Amino acid sequence: MELPDIQGGSLHQSYRITRVGVRGLKRPVVIHRPGKDVLLVLVIDVMVNLPAEQRGSHMSRHVEVINRSIDAAIGKDHGSLEDLVRRIALDLLESHGYATYAEVQVKADYFREKISPDQRKVVENYVILSGARTSRGQGSPSLMIGVEASGMSACPCAMETVRTVLADDLRRSGATAEQLEVLNMIPVPTHNQKNRTTLSLEWTSEMKVDADELIDIVERNLSSPTYEILKRAGEASVVLDAHRKPQFVEDIVRDIIDDVLSTHPELPDDVQIKVCSVSEESIHKHDAFAERTSTLGELREGSRHEKETFIH
Amino acid sequence: MELPDIQGGSLHQSYRITRVGVRGLKRPVVIHRPGKDVLLVLVIDVMVNLPAEQRGSHMSRHVEVINRSIDAAIGKDHGSLEDLVRRIALDLLESHGYATYAEVQVKADYFREKISPDQRKVVENYVILSGARTSRGQGSPSLMIGVEASGMSACPCAMETVRTVLADDLRRSGATAEQLEVLNMIPVPTHNQKNRTTLSLEWTSEMKVDADELIDIVERNLSSPTYEILKRAGEASVVLDAHRKPQFVEDIVRDIIDDVLSTHPELPDDVQIKVCSVSEESIHKHDAFAERTSTLGELREGSRHEKETFIH
Amino acid sequence: MELPDIQGGSLHQSYRITRVGVRGLKRPVVIHRPGKDVLLVLVIDVMVNLPAEQRGSHMSRHVEVINRSIDAAIGKDHGSLEDLVRRIALDLLESHGYATYAEVQVKADYFREKISPDQRKVVENYVILSGARTSRGQGSPSLMIGVEASGMSACPCAMETVRTVLADDLRRSGATAEQLEVLNMIPVPTHNQKNRTTLSLEWTSEMKVDADELIDIVERNLSSPTYEILKRAGEASVVLDAHRKPQFVEDIVRDIIDDVLSTHPELPDDVQIKVCSVSEESIHKHDAFAERTSTLGELREGSRHEKETFIH
Amino acid sequence: MELPDIQGGSLHQSYRITRVGVRGLKRPVVIHRPGKDVLLVLVIDVMVNLPAEQRGSHMSRHVEVINRSIDAAIGKDHGSLEDLVRRIALDLLESHGYATYAEVQVKADYFREKISPDQRKVVENYVILSGARTSRGQGSPSLMIGVEASGMSACPCAMETVRTVLADDLRRSGATAEQLEVLNMIPVPTHNQKNRTTLSLEWTSEMKVDADELIDIVERNLSSPTYEILKRAGEASVVLDAHRKPQFVEDIVRDIIDDVLSTHPELPDDVQIKVCSVSEESIHKHDAFAERTSTLGELREGSRHEKETFIH
Repeated sequence: MELPDIQGGSLHQSYRITRVGVRGLKRPVVIHRPGKDVLLVLVIDVMVNLPAEQRGSHMSRHVEVINRSIDAAIGKDHGSLEDLVRRIALDLLESHGYATYAEVQVKADYFREKISPDQRKVVENYVILSGARTSRGQGSPSLMIGVEASGMSACPCAMETVRTVLADDLRRSGATAEQLEVLNMIPVPTHNQKNRTTLSLEWTSEMKVDADELIDIVERNLSSPTYEILKRAGEASVVLDAHRKPQFVEDIVRDIIDDVLSTHPELPDDVQIKVCSVSEESIHKHDAFAERTSTLGELREGSRHEKETFIH
Repeated sequence: MELPDIQGGSLHQSYRITRVGVRGLKRPVVIHRPGKDVLLVLVIDVMVNLPAEQRGSHMSRHVEVINRSIDAAIGKDHGSLEDLVRRIALDLLESHGYATYAEVQVKADYFREKISPDQRKVVENYVILSGARTSRGQGSPSLMIGVEASGMSACPCAMETVRTVLADDLRRSGATAEQLEVLNMIPVPTHNQKNRTTLSLEWTSEMKVDADELIDIVERNLSSPTYEILKRAGEASVVLDAHRKPQFVEDIVRDIIDDVLSTHPELPDDVQIKVCSVSEESIHKHDAFAERTSTLGELREGSRHEKETFIH
Repeated sequence: MELPDIQGGSLHQSYRITRVGVRGLKRPVVIHRPGKDVLLVLVIDVMVNLPAEQRGSHMSRHVEVINRSIDAAIGKDHGSLEDLVRRIALDLLESHGYATYAEVQVKADYFREKISPDQRKVVENYVILSGARTSRGQGSPSLMIGVEASGMSACPCAMETVRTVLADDLRRSGATAEQLEVLNMIPVPTHNQKNRTTLSLEWTSEMKVDADELIDIVERNLSSPTYEILKRAGEASVVLDAHRKPQFVEDIVRDIIDDVLSTHPELPDDVQIKVCSVSEESIHKHDAFAERTSTLGELREGSRHEKETFIH
Repeated sequence: MELPDIQGGSLHQSYRITRVGVRGLKRPVVIHRPGKDVLLVLVIDVMVNLPAEQRGSHMSRHVEVINRSIDAAIGKDHGSLEDLVRRIALDLLESHGYATYAEVQVKADYFREKISPDQRKVVENYVILSGARTSRGQGSPSLMIGVEASGMSACPCAMETVRTVLADDLRRSGATAEQLEVLNMIPVPTHNQKNRTTLSLEWTSEMKVDADELIDIVERNLSSPTYEILKRAGEASVVLDAHRKPQFVEDIVRDIIDDVLSTHPELPDDVQIKVCSVSEESIHKHDAFAERTSTLGELREGSRHEKETFIH
């Protein structure tokens, strides 16, 4: 009994498909890192393009590619997400002979042990992102690694207004000049909230990016990182840290860019960077957000360039 | 051509079904209130029970009931959600002759104009909930009205710890006793965040509940309501209000109960109340929550009763 | 420097809190089972009650309990979710001396290797649920294990209507009686769709439930299980299996109950069972659902009982 | 008391921000159309860019722009979403003097009355999308209108395999040649499922696009539209329609493109089109999807062009 190949049927008059594939496939993996095993439940999207004359993509091959690549890339001693997505992209092209473009995107919850301000061992939750794209004949696929970290943002604007209002109030109730001085010695209340910031890099040349380091960069440019366990002293320390570094979403995006550039002079100019920061405003029902997409090269040309290109 | 009735087929040996019906049906309605029209996109779940000997519920009748009830209850001069859900529950029983129980739950975004602290007209977003349940022969269905409002909660614990730490810091850096006094005259920083609180009432006797009033009750027991537009002075006022009324989730739940009891002595003892408050902690990645379910009667017996029943 | 205990503050006139705690905390664990390691990213809710005279629950203790219990219950040779949730419930009561009730709920994606109809090794995605509740002095907490499996449901009603319509069409176009007979020899088209069914058991006495077996029970009572990879022959086999066993959501719920009762005569009568089946209707924009909650004892009294209790 | 302007503070060395603004603001509107009022609960994102030397965007202005534009564009006799988003984009640029780029995206549930196959008046649920982007000095903003419609997709591949398998089965059980012929006269079973397809157009020149017509185009290229109420005959008719037009996601995307081109020769070549079709596979736990983004001009050059550009 021979079964018909409907997808392979040819069309004499048709349109190309930009991307066709499988979305939302989940798969657990353990990546063996020196000193620890990393557990990830990957959510995976894979896709290829389709020429005008081919009716359908063979969908089962997409899943076969994922399974083969996981077997080959993960669970070994030096497994990595980058290796996984590179293999998937290359194997997609090989398995779909009619395609000239292949892409994969993966996403997973990611966990790290940390030491809290009151010296407790805590486990913090992040999101890790990775992806690869390639065109037939391109050589090595372009690779992407990204992270999402949540932490605290405290508003610089409200803090200064509050300081002005408090000074005014104290003055009216007869405070002395010496007492008023206290307001400039301490952080005063402002609205603070959960902030979710994503940082990702995409590159084509040979290089290494460590997701843990991207998380460190994001966390140190928020008003403060957050912790699952905080006893009283730790809680006060996080609150005070955050109020001593109030940050707009714009500040967070710019400080992260600055941090990447100054700590990573070795990264090539053609690396694509994307930073997006979202504050779930505690004084509004909506969110505030800011984002920057650029190449490291463009950013390195510095603020002079930035201003110039901006005007036009 | 006669079409077979598969659902109506009888089963000689089977099990009752607790609830069977339709979920997630969306429907836009306009309720005409004195002075304003209220637009709601309802998400509706309807269900009945099924006796052991009936194979299937006739699903299309569930949707017909919804449509008929909307036509009858909404769009008239004195339309109301309570009227809608009551009609749906009664009509479900009538249309499914084999059922002895019927239930409907609806949910919708809800908007109200307010005046912000800096005297601007703003439109704030809430969620409105309603439902009805009835059993054959029960008479009037029991009705439920609820609201979800988001606002700000500021942590009372972190504020006092921060005050202690700031006092200690100032003392070490040589502040005078007079200067230290300032710390007791002003609110100091604490973590604050988006809080989502739900309040609902369910009753069987004849009575009226106004969703707007439930929203007012929730909002005045948060650390502060929030507003879509806040210019600088308004922002400072919301931040200071919140810091002058720091509230745990437990405080919010209890203060709302207290508020309902003291402002609504006319509500019968058998009214069911549910209050649930969730703070999206700005110092953690997880949420804190508290909830109380009770009857007004049980709550009115007061704290003596509360303590007694608790011990056993 | 002594820090104030705001939560521990007493209230002379207040209300009990039904449940207070932490929601949505995520934690990765590896459970070592004979022959395989199970990776789970748990989403955890923990809560206790609060007496009227205690202002707040100590939230950091909730997270400490989770961490301690994971260390004690997981990662050992015979770790299990039941052991984890039992320990969490008991430790919550011990850590919150003022509480008389404690509860924990966990949820995680869960994966199993299977063999597809065309003999391929595939990895299928389910959801595993577990929970525990206990009151001070109760002895052993009540435990819950549940699973959610998605598969295919094919509608029995539409299939018979379609058969009638096709017969009518064929007759009109001059088909012979012999040809018309074919319609009774083959399954004909009907609408089929993704169905998500949850089965959970909760018990207090000493007993064992295996999540894998609950998944097997759900899957064999759907129209057909589904598979991540299906080559042509496998795809036809799944489609034909499903069309040879068309199932309403009501059928799925009842057949699962029947299956549990007949394959598990050893389970005690006081075990609580909950079955909920949702079909994401391919001919509608809304979902159809059915559910039954009961004790095994009540179900065992059989259909006579069912009918009797139903009438009243 | 003068309040400080922290956002307006200048930075001497910094980076541009690509987009900064407000996300997820909800707002109810009623659009008066000839013969009917359209109720929409809009979810709105607005954003501008920010030069390197400006510290922050004035977030409250974003919301003021939304409110002003709704008052000006909606509720009048000829209100429209396109008018709303155009006004918002232009007003964003005017209100943020430092910005050179502005963008708005809106999304809402959308409902239409239809007549079901069994001649009932039903209300069907869609999603409507709109957006506008503009740069300082650009003149008229570019506008986008899109729709998402869900309906049924039936798999052409599984249907042919099933036909082959059924023929084989019948042959083995001694069916006559005449009987086997029946298999070519009727549609046979295949997997079918909920399909969600999005079609959007973006343009810069003067033109009109009607969302209702985009919905019609999507629905007539699915295997079948779906309906909230279907009595038996209507249900059979939808099932048979879908099985007489089995469609891969790739087919849906291509047929929609073909439909737009052939029914809208008047649309300019520089109109951007995006079509994305997602089938929530009833035989898998993951989704299948296909998408095409292009200009109408590129598509009109036809399949010759398509094939040529593909090869390179």
